[in-house]
Amino acid sequence: MPAGSGRRVSRFPLADVAGLPEDLRERILGIQDKTGFVPNVFLGLAHRPDELRAFLAYHDAVMERDGGLSKAEREMVVVATSATRSCTYCVVAHGAILRVRARDPLLSDYLATDVRQAPVTPRQTALLAYAVRLSTTPELVEDADLEVLRSHGLTDDDIWDVGAVTAFFAMSNRLAHAMALVPNEEFHLMGRLPRGDRAGG
Amino acid sequence: MPAGSGRRVSRFPLADVAGLPEDLRERILGIQDKTGFVPNVFLGLAHRPDELRAFLAYHDAVMERDGGLSKAEREMVVVATSATRSCTYCVVAHGAILRVRARDPLLSDYLATDVRQAPVTPRQTALLAYAVRLSTTPELVEDADLEVLRSHGLTDDDIWDVGAVTAFFAMSNRLAHAMALVPNEEFHLMGRLPRGDRAGG
Amino acid sequence: MPAGSGRRVSRFPLADVAGLPEDLRERILGIQDKTGFVPNVFLGLAHRPDELRAFLAYHDAVMERDGGLSKAEREMVVVATSATRSCTYCVVAHGAILRVRARDPLLSDYLATDVRQAPVTPRQTALLAYAVRLSTTPELVEDADLEVLRSHGLTDDDIWDVGAVTAFFAMSNRLAHAMALVPNEEFHLMGRLPRGDRAGG
Amino acid sequence: MPAGSGRRVSRFPLADVAGLPEDLRERILGIQDKTGFVPNVFLGLAHRPDELRAFLAYHDAVMERDGGLSKAEREMVVVATSATRSCTYCVVAHGAILRVRARDPLLSDYLATDVRQAPVTPRQTALLAYAVRLSTTPELVEDADLEVLRSHGLTDDDIWDVGAVTAFFAMSNRLAHAMALVPNEEFHLMGRLPRGDRAGG
Amino acid sequence: MPAGSGRRVSRFPLADVAGLPEDLRERILGIQDKTGFVPNVFLGLAHRPDELRAFLAYHDAVMERDGGLSKAEREMVVVATSATRSCTYCVVAHGAILRVRARDPLLSDYLATDVRQAPVTPRQTALLAYAVRLSTTPELVEDADLEVLRSHGLTDDDIWDVGAVTAFFAMSNRLAHAMALVPNEEFHLMGRLPRGDRAGG
Amino acid sequence: MPAGSGRRVSRFPLADVAGLPEDLRERILGIQDKTGFVPNVFLGLAHRPDELRAFLAYHDAVMERDGGLSKAEREMVVVATSATRSCTYCVVAHGAILRVRARDPLLSDYLATDVRQAPVTPRQTALLAYAVRLSTTPELVEDADLEVLRSHGLTDDDIWDVGAVTAFFAMSNRLAHAMALVPNEEFHLMGRLPRGDRAGG
Repeated sequence: MPAGSGRRVSRFPLADVAGLPEDLRERILGIQDKTGFVPNVFLGLAHRPDELRAFLAYHDAVMERDGGLSKAEREMVVVATSATRSCTYCVVAHGAILRVRARDPLLSDYLATDVRQAPVTPRQTALLAYAVRLSTTPELVEDADLEVLRSHGLTDDDIWDVGAVTAFFAMSNRLAHAMALVPNEEFHLMGRLPRGDRAGG
Repeated sequence: MPAGSGRRVSRFPLADVAGLPEDLRERILGIQDKTGFVPNVFLGLAHRPDELRAFLAYHDAVMERDGGLSKAEREMVVVATSATRSCTYCVVAHGAILRVRARDPLLSDYLATDVRQAPVTPRQTALLAYAVRLSTTPELVEDADLEVLRSHGLTDDDIWDVGAVTAFFAMSNRLAHAMALVPNEEFHLMGRLPRGDRAGG
Repeated sequence: MPAGSGRRVSRFPLADVAGLPEDLRERILGIQDKTGFVPNVFLGLAHRPDELRAFLAYHDAVMERDGGLSKAEREMVVVATSATRSCTYCVVAHGAILRVRARDPLLSDYLATDVRQAPVTPRQTALLAYAVRLSTTPELVEDADLEVLRSHGLTDDDIWDVGAVTAFFAMSNRLAHAMALVPNEEFHLMGRLPRGDRAGG
Repeated sequence: MPAGSGRRVSRFPLADVAGLPEDLRERILGIQDKTGFVPNVFLGLAHRPDELRAFLAYHDAVMERDGGLSKAEREMVVVATSATRSCTYCVVAHGAILRVRARDPLLSDYLATDVRQAPVTPRQTALLAYAVRLSTTPELVEDADLEVLRSHGLTDDDIWDVGAVTAFFAMSNRLAHAMALVPNEEFHLMGRLPRGDRAGG
Repeated sequence: MPAGSGRRVSRFPLADVAGLPEDLRERILGIQDKTGFVPNVFLGLAHRPDELRAFLAYHDAVMERDGGLSKAEREMVVVATSATRSCTYCVVAHGAILRVRARDPLLSDYLATDVRQAPVTPRQTALLAYAVRLSTTPELVEDADLEVLRSHGLTDDDIWDVGAVTAFFAMSNRLAHAMALVPNEEFHLMGRLPRGDRAGG
Repeated sequence: MPAGSGRRVSRFPLADVAGLPEDLRERILGIQDKTGFVPNVFLGLAHRPDELRAFLAYHDAVMERDGGLSKAEREMVVVATSATRSCTYCVVAHGAILRVRARDPLLSDYLATDVRQAPVTPRQTALLAYAVRLSTTPELVEDADLEVLRSHGLTDDDIWDVGAVTAFFAMSNRLAHAMALVPNEEFHLMGRLPRGDRAGG
């Protein structure tokens, strides 16, 4: 039996999707239609509908916003900062999303283990270094850190976005650890195969 | 000239309240009516209305919810965890709110410096130790930590609340550090005086 | 009942002032006459008169000495370094003294939470950074750190003073933690009000 | 172009297999025959034939030895301890080997992110905790740690093996970081698919 | 030329003994008569006579006091805590004094490298663990730590002494690092030889 | 009775030299002939002949190799990195070897306590800083660190040697801590006396 089968998914109650308020139920079923499964974070947070609703609104505001950061770059921030906090759910789930968004089967593994050696652009190296600093030792962030980002062409709006994504996932990492949330098995393989061979593709 | 006068309040643009969407403007003016000033966190986040809206919804969901944790205890979690991250805005602002909610002029100063020596109940000592662990080393939280809280009479709903407040302010601390957000001067004295003598009371 | 009432002040015996050797009794009564109360550190150390006597002599030698550092700056060093060691007694008591000496009701709160963001002069930023480094990781101090201070106009005598104050309070912090020393309640409000309104002023 | 293509594999010269001493050349070609590629660690170390030869002899002595630890468990130690040192090469390469040896496509991802939450047996949890402690803070290992392992049925020979594998990979991690060694792309997917679908299977 | 010859002894001025106030000059010459050399710490502090005087008074109060701790045990505290702060002067000088006082040529080397493995009595293991905790993370000292010491037969006066020695040398370590104080060469060999063979004996 | 007498030398079985395979027996007896005693590390590892054999082969490959690093400099790397891991066996034994190889009775004591203040050449300061970084936080090593070494005239072969010695002793430190290996008493005094007076000289 592979690791993960039959494991407890969260320390707290999992929601029954059918019993959720309509807006949340529709959101979750929409994701299931698109992805083929319901990510466990939804099931883990939904026993608190107001918190899940705010979580989703915040998530969309920082992850879906148009701007200078690509969606793949936002996911890179998530994987790199979540790895510094050993957040299995966030690293595995967002590592999968990053593979899909960056069309790169390898990058998540690099970011999950050692962001400093990951083969990204100098601009991305800089923004990831800022994100990791803000995530792990936010009190050390200083004006000079923002100057570095500006020297790589980031606007203040872009810098805000890096910070907002980092901050939101500092929260998510702690929610996941409080739950001991287990990632769905589907995430582990997602985006690792060339499109034609993709499992469930 | 005392420290703080004329200081930069945030590294990012401060919103003009008059130009905000109506729901946010009304919320902020309501706070100003009640407290006498607009806390800087609103002005610092409001250049991103969607994010401020989600921030407020999340804040209310975890701080205003009925349950086994008193509002003062929620603020205790905020002050203790924000202190571990050297978050001046959160410690000063929520230290003030805690003084008011706990009707205790001293407790915030203890929690801000050394949560371990603060004169609180054994139950509060336990929930603050859990909050600090989840905030600083979330990956070390284990089932046994929750058992300790249950042994002090916390329900799983209460434990969730401690975790949710902690996680939300892990985000807030990082937003405040990204902004280098300065607390309003009014917070420093709030709740320190007996009611009859209170400055601005 | 506010936090702090009836608390144990020290893990070790508190001295009875009346029974102390005359030189210590007079010193303590002199402070009481001037301040209105006897700071708990005297009562906590006095069961060892030789140690209290040496402590006071050392304190006066580094805190009262004429030189390039103002008395307020010496207190800034005390508050900033004591905060890194979570020393409630030192932060609260010397935070109060700093408010009085600097005639600034806010500065102590900034230094107690995040010395890096405190609104002080560049020279003070530099000397506080040196003090915090010497306090927390003294083995990392190198010649270049002193050069930075010289570039801000500090003489070697001034640099010695910063180091001596830092070292003395590294000792004090540990004595206070060994005692679990509780600050007098009077310190919390001292220096927070405009002179006309000052409690006990 | 996916991440990793055309990257520098090591900071130091890569060996040309054809030019190696016969024993090393045969060993490497044998691995290539079996696995389909030459792991980069061989190419990175081989400019120093004596060191590669000693490395292989030591590796075999601790990884191939018969005893109470299964080969999969030895790889678990490698992945868990290498993850604490952010060693991309070791985590990716030995993560792959672990997937194959444990016939488990998920376990490596758990161990690579948060060994504490990995779904392993209590005996494995204990031996991994010992390995991580010996790897990260070896000076804190004490007799009581070995007693815990004995209470889970490990013999002293088994405990030695855990320690020897841990120590050997403490060396390997540092060699890999000195080289900035990049893992072969083949490792990322190895062992992730059911046997019938396995890439290169 | 051996290491140490002609090195700068301190970053700050060294005092000329002949020019010191009489009480300090006599004290220093007395030590020279007894030991054969003037320890550099005296020469390094003496440009501030008031501070050296207070330093000596405090030193004698905590190191020469009668009580349950032997003088050798006090030196053990000095070596063990100074080692955690990489204080070369204190480790080398007090390592020498400990060899003499304990009539043991090896113990200092053990304490200087890994206090946890030093071959001392269980009582000494406990008091050294307390001293190291108070020195490195004083904020973590709690009532339970003192209970452990009491269970080994230490009185509260003994516990105070351990804390006072630890605190005094937390100060000394920082003074030595501020000076980059170099130990006298004589200390390195002192107490290492059987009495008949002792260099300078 | 001096510390160390009759102490347990290792947590695991010590080998009987007479019963070892001939190659290992001859190697060990050769060392005994030359040095006058058998270093405990041989006796501690020899219950695993294959591992001891690989250990010795690796040791010789990195420590005895001709190249730009002197043998004394290799031992400096060993002492400095082992000190950061509180490895009593490695610090005491290789401190002794360094005293002999560098003909310097003091240098080991400096390196064992605070590598940053040791009186070595700028080139040695740089290579020791690299070694300590690779030993303690290998994931932070970056290209720029190697550039610094090149600016001091180290070739890439020399840099490899520093890294290889560091990595090998990262393993040795962990083996020694797993064994709680005690250094032979002979090491403590070796190389401390002028040649004419040298104990066993």
